[in-house]
Amino acid sequence: MDNRKLQELLQNVRDGKISVKEAEKTLKYLPYADINTAKIDHHRSIRRGMPEVIFCQGKTPEQSLAVFQELAKHNECVLATRVSQETASLIRSQFPDACYCQEAKILFLSTGENRPRTGKIAVLTAGTSDLPVAEEAALTAEVLGSEVVRIYDVGVAGIHRIFPYLEDIDKCQVLIAVAGMEGALPGVVAGLTDKPVIAVPTSTGYGANFGGLAALLAMLNSCSPGVGVVNIDNGFGAAVLAYLIIKNSFQGEA
Amino acid sequence: MDNRKLQELLQNVRDGKISVKEAEKTLKYLPYADINTAKIDHHRSIRRGMPEVIFCQGKTPEQSLAVFQELAKHNECVLATRVSQETASLIRSQFPDACYCQEAKILFLSTGENRPRTGKIAVLTAGTSDLPVAEEAALTAEVLGSEVVRIYDVGVAGIHRIFPYLEDIDKCQVLIAVAGMEGALPGVVAGLTDKPVIAVPTSTGYGANFGGLAALLAMLNSCSPGVGVVNIDNGFGAAVLAYLIIKNSFQGEA
Amino acid sequence: MDNRKLQELLQNVRDGKISVKEAEKTLKYLPYADINTAKIDHHRSIRRGMPEVIFCQGKTPEQSLAVFQELAKHNECVLATRVSQETASLIRSQFPDACYCQEAKILFLSTGENRPRTGKIAVLTAGTSDLPVAEEAALTAEVLGSEVVRIYDVGVAGIHRIFPYLEDIDKCQVLIAVAGMEGALPGVVAGLTDKPVIAVPTSTGYGANFGGLAALLAMLNSCSPGVGVVNIDNGFGAAVLAYLIIKNSFQGEA
Amino acid sequence: MDNRKLQELLQNVRDGKISVKEAEKTLKYLPYADINTAKIDHHRSIRRGMPEVIFCQGKTPEQSLAVFQELAKHNECVLATRVSQETASLIRSQFPDACYCQEAKILFLSTGENRPRTGKIAVLTAGTSDLPVAEEAALTAEVLGSEVVRIYDVGVAGIHRIFPYLEDIDKCQVLIAVAGMEGALPGVVAGLTDKPVIAVPTSTGYGANFGGLAALLAMLNSCSPGVGVVNIDNGFGAAVLAYLIIKNSFQGEA
Amino acid sequence: MDNRKLQELLQNVRDGKISVKEAEKTLKYLPYADINTAKIDHHRSIRRGMPEVIFCQGKTPEQSLAVFQELAKHNECVLATRVSQETASLIRSQFPDACYCQEAKILFLSTGENRPRTGKIAVLTAGTSDLPVAEEAALTAEVLGSEVVRIYDVGVAGIHRIFPYLEDIDKCQVLIAVAGMEGALPGVVAGLTDKPVIAVPTSTGYGANFGGLAALLAMLNSCSPGVGVVNIDNGFGAAVLAYLIIKNSFQGEA
Amino acid sequence: MDNRKLQELLQNVRDGKISVKEAEKTLKYLPYADINTAKIDHHRSIRRGMPEVIFCQGKTPEQSLAVFQELAKHNECVLATRVSQETASLIRSQFPDACYCQEAKILFLSTGENRPRTGKIAVLTAGTSDLPVAEEAALTAEVLGSEVVRIYDVGVAGIHRIFPYLEDIDKCQVLIAVAGMEGALPGVVAGLTDKPVIAVPTSTGYGANFGGLAALLAMLNSCSPGVGVVNIDNGFGAAVLAYLIIKNSFQGEA
Amino acid sequence: MDNRKLQELLQNVRDGKISVKEAEKTLKYLPYADINTAKIDHHRSIRRGMPEVIFCQGKTPEQSLAVFQELAKHNECVLATRVSQETASLIRSQFPDACYCQEAKILFLSTGENRPRTGKIAVLTAGTSDLPVAEEAALTAEVLGSEVVRIYDVGVAGIHRIFPYLEDIDKCQVLIAVAGMEGALPGVVAGLTDKPVIAVPTSTGYGANFGGLAALLAMLNSCSPGVGVVNIDNGFGAAVLAYLIIKNSFQGEA
Amino acid sequence: MDNRKLQELLQNVRDGKISVKEAEKTLKYLPYADINTAKIDHHRSIRRGMPEVIFCQGKTPEQSLAVFQELAKHNECVLATRVSQETASLIRSQFPDACYCQEAKILFLSTGENRPRTGKIAVLTAGTSDLPVAEEAALTAEVLGSEVVRIYDVGVAGIHRIFPYLEDIDKCQVLIAVAGMEGALPGVVAGLTDKPVIAVPTSTGYGANFGGLAALLAMLNSCSPGVGVVNIDNGFGAAVLAYLIIKNSFQGEA
Repeated sequence: MDNRKLQELLQNVRDGKISVKEAEKTLKYLPYADINTAKIDHHRSIRRGMPEVIFCQGKTPEQSLAVFQELAKHNECVLATRVSQETASLIRSQFPDACYCQEAKILFLSTGENRPRTGKIAVLTAGTSDLPVAEEAALTAEVLGSEVVRIYDVGVAGIHRIFPYLEDIDKCQVLIAVAGMEGALPGVVAGLTDKPVIAVPTSTGYGANFGGLAALLAMLNSCSPGVGVVNIDNGFGAAVLAYLIIKNSFQGEA
Repeated sequence: MDNRKLQELLQNVRDGKISVKEAEKTLKYLPYADINTAKIDHHRSIRRGMPEVIFCQGKTPEQSLAVFQELAKHNECVLATRVSQETASLIRSQFPDACYCQEAKILFLSTGENRPRTGKIAVLTAGTSDLPVAEEAALTAEVLGSEVVRIYDVGVAGIHRIFPYLEDIDKCQVLIAVAGMEGALPGVVAGLTDKPVIAVPTSTGYGANFGGLAALLAMLNSCSPGVGVVNIDNGFGAAVLAYLIIKNSFQGEA
Repeated sequence: MDNRKLQELLQNVRDGKISVKEAEKTLKYLPYADINTAKIDHHRSIRRGMPEVIFCQGKTPEQSLAVFQELAKHNECVLATRVSQETASLIRSQFPDACYCQEAKILFLSTGENRPRTGKIAVLTAGTSDLPVAEEAALTAEVLGSEVVRIYDVGVAGIHRIFPYLEDIDKCQVLIAVAGMEGALPGVVAGLTDKPVIAVPTSTGYGANFGGLAALLAMLNSCSPGVGVVNIDNGFGAAVLAYLIIKNSFQGEA
Repeated sequence: MDNRKLQELLQNVRDGKISVKEAEKTLKYLPYADINTAKIDHHRSIRRGMPEVIFCQGKTPEQSLAVFQELAKHNECVLATRVSQETASLIRSQFPDACYCQEAKILFLSTGENRPRTGKIAVLTAGTSDLPVAEEAALTAEVLGSEVVRIYDVGVAGIHRIFPYLEDIDKCQVLIAVAGMEGALPGVVAGLTDKPVIAVPTSTGYGANFGGLAALLAMLNSCSPGVGVVNIDNGFGAAVLAYLIIKNSFQGEA
Repeated sequence: MDNRKLQELLQNVRDGKISVKEAEKTLKYLPYADINTAKIDHHRSIRRGMPEVIFCQGKTPEQSLAVFQELAKHNECVLATRVSQETASLIRSQFPDACYCQEAKILFLSTGENRPRTGKIAVLTAGTSDLPVAEEAALTAEVLGSEVVRIYDVGVAGIHRIFPYLEDIDKCQVLIAVAGMEGALPGVVAGLTDKPVIAVPTSTGYGANFGGLAALLAMLNSCSPGVGVVNIDNGFGAAVLAYLIIKNSFQGEA
Repeated sequence: MDNRKLQELLQNVRDGKISVKEAEKTLKYLPYADINTAKIDHHRSIRRGMPEVIFCQGKTPEQSLAVFQELAKHNECVLATRVSQETASLIRSQFPDACYCQEAKILFLSTGENRPRTGKIAVLTAGTSDLPVAEEAALTAEVLGSEVVRIYDVGVAGIHRIFPYLEDIDKCQVLIAVAGMEGALPGVVAGLTDKPVIAVPTSTGYGANFGGLAALLAMLNSCSPGVGVVNIDNGFGAAVLAYLIIKNSFQGEA
Repeated sequence: MDNRKLQELLQNVRDGKISVKEAEKTLKYLPYADINTAKIDHHRSIRRGMPEVIFCQGKTPEQSLAVFQELAKHNECVLATRVSQETASLIRSQFPDACYCQEAKILFLSTGENRPRTGKIAVLTAGTSDLPVAEEAALTAEVLGSEVVRIYDVGVAGIHRIFPYLEDIDKCQVLIAVAGMEGALPGVVAGLTDKPVIAVPTSTGYGANFGGLAALLAMLNSCSPGVGVVNIDNGFGAAVLAYLIIKNSFQGEA
Repeated sequence: MDNRKLQELLQNVRDGKISVKEAEKTLKYLPYADINTAKIDHHRSIRRGMPEVIFCQGKTPEQSLAVFQELAKHNECVLATRVSQETASLIRSQFPDACYCQEAKILFLSTGENRPRTGKIAVLTAGTSDLPVAEEAALTAEVLGSEVVRIYDVGVAGIHRIFPYLEDIDKCQVLIAVAGMEGALPGVVAGLTDKPVIAVPTSTGYGANFGGLAALLAMLNSCSPGVGVVNIDNGFGAAVLAYLIIKNSFQGEA
């Protein structure tokens, strides 16, 4: 039950068109959920700028296209993640304006006007093999409207490489640190800065990395407080968390 | 090597008091680390208001007291976590002004003036047995200078209990959601709001909860993006992450 | 040794055709198992309506067809699960009346009369990617003779979506809640209703979901009592458990 | 917002005492949750007969007593689980009518009239060391109002021992099968009967049983469909699930 | 239903005292289980010499004594394992003839005549800390009637120590190899002899031995075929398996 | 250093052809290992009848053929396990007399005379999907010279099916029980007989069977003592263990 | 900032070309990292002889070639590991002098003069299936400039086979012991020699080896001290560790 | 059979006192192992300076004392690890010259002359709670005769703290890096130096560190090659490995 319907109902009560009892029943059994939905949709509308997102992994190209078409009808901006080249080709045959980044496996459509960038996020990686996950995070963050500073290949195999970037990092509000193998980068970065660090373990590695478990556990056990961890390879989730942090921070200013 | 020393060194080079070669050697071998330290301490000084912290678990009361005494010499504010009642009694016999919360196992000393509260954090728990961890988070956040809204016992065993608090939640910048057992609360909350959610799994439960692993995995797999997870029972770490988020957000305003 | 044979044996004892000693030996060593079998088959016959089931995963299309043909000789109703499209095509080339649902990977043949539906089961899913498992459960339950209410995509990423269905749920005797990722749906549902909840974790997700382990552990640790868990992706098993619950409940009425 | 308040609000709209806009705001922001609560409490009231339950593990005797006293004010029947002898003594010093079973670690108070038993549940154990968990289940089921048939020590170390009980089992509507070590009993029982089986793994055993994990996995992998598994040592949860199955079955009869 | 009862029943059928129908019902529903039991007890009687066994871990001294007293009424030989010194003292106060080995935590009573030893078993350990488990195996094997050769402290930290014992080993029919830590002994021994090897992992070690898991996995992955593994610390189980191997081997000779 | 060489050396010492010092050095540094080898090969020769074995998994057809050809030069009997159909075709193109069993993935060549069968082994399976592993065990046992009784599809989903086979089982010296999923068969069989049971977990199943881990743990935790467990899917290893048991048992008779 | 640049800066300060303040800023913010880099590169230059290394797993042949070309511009020696045959063919089409070992999946280019070998390393394997990992270690060690003694197929399935090699082993400075399955070889070797042992678990095996976990745990739990373990299948890492041990040992001589 | 006995035997053959056949038998069956032992003991004697070691964990004070007394009879130097204060007191009451370090839980007796230190080892820790394990390593290394440089509390929570020590580290031959929690220190150090790094994970931490597993996995997955890992908390093993590296390095110089 959206706002308009609720107004109608109440107006009808006021006008004596429906009885109090009937209205009560309507409000109590069936529509309370709609009210919730309205309330929550109201919340959602605050999130303006957050595009609808499709997770394409496990969907056929055709299924992905179908969802994309549906969303593109009602939204200015549509973001698809884990998009294979095959799926991207199919969607772009219908939506030639959609942008596709093969490394990040991200495809997005943004028909809206150019918005000013809000907030600044640094995305760091330990090694070059963490790039796909980092780019998923970086591109998502950019689509969501933030400026992104990419600081790649600064892992602990040569930790001195991070130092020249400390000043750049200092200008960001959130850091996303992406690392596989021993997953030490987020903890190191958290120890060198006073920024909130979102840690993304990747499945990069082999053997006793157990598909990213080693990096995940390392990040959860970071001896520097100030690190929040997302799922293995979840660059998208990290970007959304960064977006929400920035969104609420700027909201606070008003 | 702090700023003053570096200036002196360079002035001496300028003044011809030490040779370029000597200065080069000084800068290259020994002091570069000090420069880093200076740089980093400069960063640290920005964190003003962040008290020194003692993790008392695994320390004897005497060891804890010794560290506390050392820190109290140089700091207005000292925070100790995982403080047993026995340790608390010993420290308070020396520092009668120190406050101790038995449930949170937190003891802190704040000899400074009353600072205005910065930022607003909601701390939510799934059940009453998550309280010790939640209070560790809440008290830490308060000592760090934020306002805390406590919303306890709103777990998914009766998820409707969360709804009356949605408006309160809406006024916060960060949420800390604490839950043991199936660990579903952070994901549910992330689905209902547009706030960044810091998820704290607790070891509450038995059997196949495997000491908090079940809750940890659930939180990492949250289907709502926007959730960052800290270690099991790590209320302190969650509060520091929330503090850094708020700190950088207000910093951004200036 | 079926009933008829046992009667014959005893009649022969009565008629003096075989000695007590011989009968004793027959009953004691060899046939006692047959008696068990008879007894148990007697139990089985009570289960009338339960079709024979073939688990096709790991079988070649030819092997599956062979078993299907064998069962179809002696049974009105045959149910095959985890049926690939290739296997389905082969079987349907021989049994054109067999129905195949590709999403559920279920194929069944029901040559019997239309039986009235017994009992009402709600099948809920957290997300759209849980549908194959949910449909395996739903179709199995329908083949077993129950009415099924499908309530899909009501997971905790937007938990308010469950509320409009609470009245529908209220009319069912058993709920089957299917969820991957953090696996929170069954616990949430168990907290909102007074129905027995059969929880089915799915392998939906990636990274630290560890093939469904995260959802499985979450469900086992549900803080709402009243949840029974089956194996990961085991929609069939959930439907059989629901069937047995309903079967024994209606049996109780007589 | 309970029914009366909702009526008042609507009556006021009708009477023109408050405007449609005000009513809309009231309904939309604050009270929708109360409506939910009312709705859900309505559900809860259906659960009449389900006593309030206290999980005493991890609570001090004094804390347990306090909760018990609070609940006993408003409820005819109070059930406490995982009650140590020390806690039991303290509570019984205040509530001499409370019954305590040391083996099951259950204490309950039932000041109401004698209700007729509803439904029949068999509780089976593999070995004698599974008794505490089995008794937690059995006593909970009895307090919840069902008749319980105890069939103990019939595990697979001598599986022939189960056969004499098959006829007793046949008269029950639900089976609760409790087993540690290899956890085979529930699957064996499910293969011999047509009853729904609630499987309770216990932490009984040592070494590679990993605190009940071996039994848990075995039960989840039961080759007989029709088995729902609860958490390790969770006799209480099994009894509640059985209770809900029976409750909905008898409800269905009306 | 034992043999005598079955004879009576059949005789009554023969004599016309009961009808075929009645006999059929008796045989089909109630007594088939007794027949099984009889059959199986017949099997059990073959196991003459196998004493009744009590697993005392998790039992109070009083509970252990009660079981011991019950078994001692009907058996010449009673064996108790995992017996604490306290429990041993209590039982021996009632059974002064019972023998107790503190290291093996075994207590046994053997009032029968001296039987000749049957079969020869070598019990080997990797280190001295594996002794308690090895002695549980060795003593059990001796109580069960076999000769035991103890070859201790011959683990792979100095694998050459095993060589002088190869001739002794050659005279045994079964080897029990007990090892913690890396658990390599059973595989090494299996590579040097042509004896069946029963491997017993122990929980000896720390850190990444994970309570015996490391040794268990090593033994299961032995590159020498011919190794059967029992549970961690299960010296008793290894001895029973060795006993059954020898028992069936000598049985074969007759 | 084989026997002949050792004799020569000693004879040379006796004859004064080489000095005591030289002989000492020869014996001490270089040849001691050869002595071991001789000793051990002497042991090996006792194993007459044990063919050389090739584990083909992970080898290309060409590599497998090469090893097979090498072994076939010096051995009457060659056994290859985990042989793909492609590898089998290649080998049989060179060795037309080699027998291949596709289900067991076993290929063997036996050019020797027909030996009399020694010992009797029962191979049992829980379900039909355990057949490949069971056949690997059964065929290996037959190639090694034992009589094998196959008792398939008697798992705990219908445990009464085992009873008719108890008399057959009684005539065997060793049982090999093969089961996936909950892995309960070996424990059940061990409880019904007095035979040594070799348990083979299989990777049959899905979800929380974790590739056979569930069955493996169940078997290790068998509450019936007398069960020795081999690696997951290791039918070959079980057969070799059975062979060694029988070999040493018959050896004992002489 | 390398040495030359630092000298320039300081000279400019001395010459009054830039102010102290400017120099301070330059040294403090931007260049301190360069100083570190210089320092560390200075360290790196000590490592002369250590070629640049490319880990090709997860890279396309084209990506691998691109990195190879880049490195070959500036380095005499380039080493690529985990190189598929396809990648090797592509690179060798451009670099015909590059050597490729298919078993070790290593490709290297060494345009420099022939250096004398430094240090002696023994590489041992338990079985033939460990060869690829062993050859990765052996070839890497040879490319890094050491002499390698290959001692293959001396695992614990026939541990006597190691003895003839003890004298060869005695002449090496470091041992690399490669083993899958039960992973016992490194511990056995450590018990027989006084050499540092680098243990490399391999993923060789199946079932409960869990991709090399069994061997890894066994090696970590070696009862012989003196064993350092690297990641599963990490032959390259073992060789680098051996190289560093030897490098620092010879450095010590100067 | 030691050298003298072997000489006697051969002399007797030469002198015709025993026949070649007898000598052959003696050499072949019994004594070959003694020859091995001699050979190996010869190896052991090379290890001069390596004291006998007692692992006291799991031993009673009395048992520890007994072993200590036995070893002290025949050795100049005895080292005991994991020594509780109670055990230390008991041993020191008999050996007043024994030194005890409570933090390292190490007790040693060194009655020999002062040997010159051989080799230089740096022991680094991430945090102060890693000290007990680090001191176990450091003291063991000192007792074994090396110089130890302690560099404590330089973990990645403030990684810049390591830089001032790089020159000290440069003078060592081996590094032992001790860390709990995320276990990142060894990888960071390996990236900054060209020294072999022995990584020691500690059980320091809580929650998802799983008793040191997180640190262990991180170290095994170090992206810097050149790291060898020992068991969790195994400071002693790390020191022995370092000792063997140094011992073989200096041996190489001669």
